[in-house]
Amino acid sequence: MTPTFDDIESAAKQIVGAAHKTPVATSRTINARTGAEVFFKCENLQRAGAFKFRGAYNALSRFTPDERRRGVVTFSSGNHAQAIALAGQVLGIPRVIVMPSDAPEVKRIATEGYGGEVILYDRDKEDREAIGKRLASERGLTLVPPYDHPHIIAGQGTATRELIEEVGALDLLFVPCGGGGLLSGSAIAANAMEANCKVIGVEPAAGDDGARSFRTKTLQTVNNPKTVADGARTPSLGSLTFPLVLQYVADMVTVDDPTLLKTMFYLWERLKLVVEPTGALGAAAALAGTTPIRGLRVGVILSGGNVDLTQMPAWIQYR
Amino acid sequence: MTPTFDDIESAAKQIVGAAHKTPVATSRTINARTGAEVFFKCENLQRAGAFKFRGAYNALSRFTPDERRRGVVTFSSGNHAQAIALAGQVLGIPRVIVMPSDAPEVKRIATEGYGGEVILYDRDKEDREAIGKRLASERGLTLVPPYDHPHIIAGQGTATRELIEEVGALDLLFVPCGGGGLLSGSAIAANAMEANCKVIGVEPAAGDDGARSFRTKTLQTVNNPKTVADGARTPSLGSLTFPLVLQYVADMVTVDDPTLLKTMFYLWERLKLVVEPTGALGAAAALAGTTPIRGLRVGVILSGGNVDLTQMPAWIQYR
Repeated sequence: MTPTFDDIESAAKQIVGAAHKTPVATSRTINARTGAEVFFKCENLQRAGAFKFRGAYNALSRFTPDERRRGVVTFSSGNHAQAIALAGQVLGIPRVIVMPSDAPEVKRIATEGYGGEVILYDRDKEDREAIGKRLASERGLTLVPPYDHPHIIAGQGTATRELIEEVGALDLLFVPCGGGGLLSGSAIAANAMEANCKVIGVEPAAGDDGARSFRTKTLQTVNNPKTVADGARTPSLGSLTFPLVLQYVADMVTVDDPTLLKTMFYLWERLKLVVEPTGALGAAAALAGTTPIRGLRVGVILSGGNVDLTQMPAWIQYR
Repeated sequence: MTPTFDDIESAAKQIVGAAHKTPVATSRTINARTGAEVFFKCENLQRAGAFKFRGAYNALSRFTPDERRRGVVTFSSGNHAQAIALAGQVLGIPRVIVMPSDAPEVKRIATEGYGGEVILYDRDKEDREAIGKRLASERGLTLVPPYDHPHIIAGQGTATRELIEEVGALDLLFVPCGGGGLLSGSAIAANAMEANCKVIGVEPAAGDDGARSFRTKTLQTVNNPKTVADGARTPSLGSLTFPLVLQYVADMVTVDDPTLLKTMFYLWERLKLVVEPTGALGAAAALAGTTPIRGLRVGVILSGGNVDLTQMPAWIQYR
C-alpha cells in the first residue's frame, strides 16, 4: 500500500505528544554566505536522536493488542534500531533488533539502553532481511523494516510537514537518502503542501545507488559501500520508496566523504548543533554550490545527531 | 555603580530584537539519571555563540553619539571579544580587541570575522588591562571590560531572567564563573525573581580564585591557570562582581578538567548541543553529585559553544 499525504496527516496525529516537534534553526552567517534563506529542520533533536522515531512510533502504535503482546523485530544499522527500541519501550512492546556488527558502538549501546534485544550479524556475509524474517516466523514477531513500510514512510514525512507548516513556502528541500523512507515521505509532504517545492535527495558518493536508480529509472544496488554516512549504506531503495522517489523527487545528488565531514563540522561550529555525518548530507549538498540556491527559500533536513565521537581523531582533519 | 534587578529589566528591554531569546533544553535521560528536573539555558545558541553578546550589546547600545563615533576597546580571552566585535558591527561602532596570543584560534578568527581590530599580547608577560587603558587614552576609545562593568553585569543577568520567566521557580541554579559577570548578574536576577533559588558559581579547579575569595571573604587571585576552561582563566573576580557574589551567591564549587570534558561530551551526545568546556562548568557541577539535586528543579546556564575542534584528538580520551 503506497502512502499518501493523508497517511502523513494521520501519522502527525498519531505521534503528537510522543515525538518532539523539533525546532527549526537558522544562521545569519549561512544566509549571508549563500544569499539564500536556509531553514534547518533539527531532527537531530528528535527523541533517540533522529527522525526515525517518527516512523517507528507511527508503526508500532498501530499494532493490534495481539501484535503488541508478541513483539516487533527489525533490522537497522543504527538509528531505526534505537527508534524501534525506544518506541517499543514507550508502548510496552517487546523488541528484537538485528544490527550489523560494525554499527557505531554508540548506536548499539543506545539501542540496548532502550531495552532492545540486539542480535548482531556480519554485514559482509549475512542477509539482515533473511535474519529478520526468520526471527519473525520463529518467534511470532511482527517485522517492521527500516524504510520500506507505509507507516514508516508516512511517519518520516511528518518532519517536512512540520517544517513547511512552520516556515511557509520553500523553493528547495534537501533530504538525506539511505533507503528512501525519509526522502519519499518528505517528497509526498512537500508536493502536497507546496507544489513548487523541488525535493533533492542526497546520498554519499560511495553509496549512490539511489541517484543511479533515479537516472536510469531502474532499481540499482550497492554492496556495503565504504562511507562515513553509516545511515546511508543501505543496498538500495525499496519497492515502495523507489516509485515514490521517481514520482515526487526532483533530483538526486551525491556528496563525497571529505565534503560531508567538512560540512558536519561547519554545522557544529556555526549552529552549535551536533549532527552526524548522514545527518549532514542535505546540508552538504545545499552548501556545496552545485545546486544553485541564491535568492531561494531552502529547507534542509538535519536527519540525525547520533555521532560516534570516538571517530573524531580520524575525522577532524577534514574540518 | 552596583547594578540591581532594575538594571537587568532595563537591559532586557535594551537587547530585545538584537540578542536571541535562547531556548531551554531538557533531557528525559538526564532527568531520569539525576531524579531532578534540569533546565539547560542554551547560551551556546546566543549570537556569537555565548551569553557575552547580552552584556556587550547592552553596554555599546548605551554609548553617546560621540562615544560611538570614537569607538570601543576591550580585552578578552575570546567570547567577550567576539561579542564586542559583533555588537559593534551591528551598531556601527569601531572596535579594538586585546586578546591573549594563546586564545583559541577559532575565537580570534571569529572576532576578526566580525570586523574587530585584534591586538595580541603575551599572557605571561603583559597586562591586558594596562594595554586596554593605554589604547583608550591614546585613541580616545571607551573601555568596556569583560565583566567588571554595570552594563555588562546587567546584560548577562538577562539570561537567568529569561530562564526563570520561561520555566518558573527553581531550587538551584548552576552558573559558570570566570570574572563573575555572568554569575553576579544571574544571582541578582534569581534573587529578585525567586528568593528561594540558591545560585551556585562553578569554576575550573585550577582557577579556583573565586571559590577561595568566597570562602575567605577576601579577594584571591590566580595566575594564568592551566585549564581547558579558557573562558574562566581570569585572574580574579572584579571590584563590582566580588561584593555581588558575596551578597547573592549561595556557594562556589570547582570541577576538574577531566570531569569537565567528560560532561561536555555527555552534553554533545545527549543534548546534541555543542558546548565549549567553560560552557559546561555549570552542567558538570550539577551532574557531579557533590551538590544534591534529587527531587529539585535545577537551572544550568550553558554559557557558550565556541569550542576549538582542533583540540578534539587531545580531549576525546576524557569522554
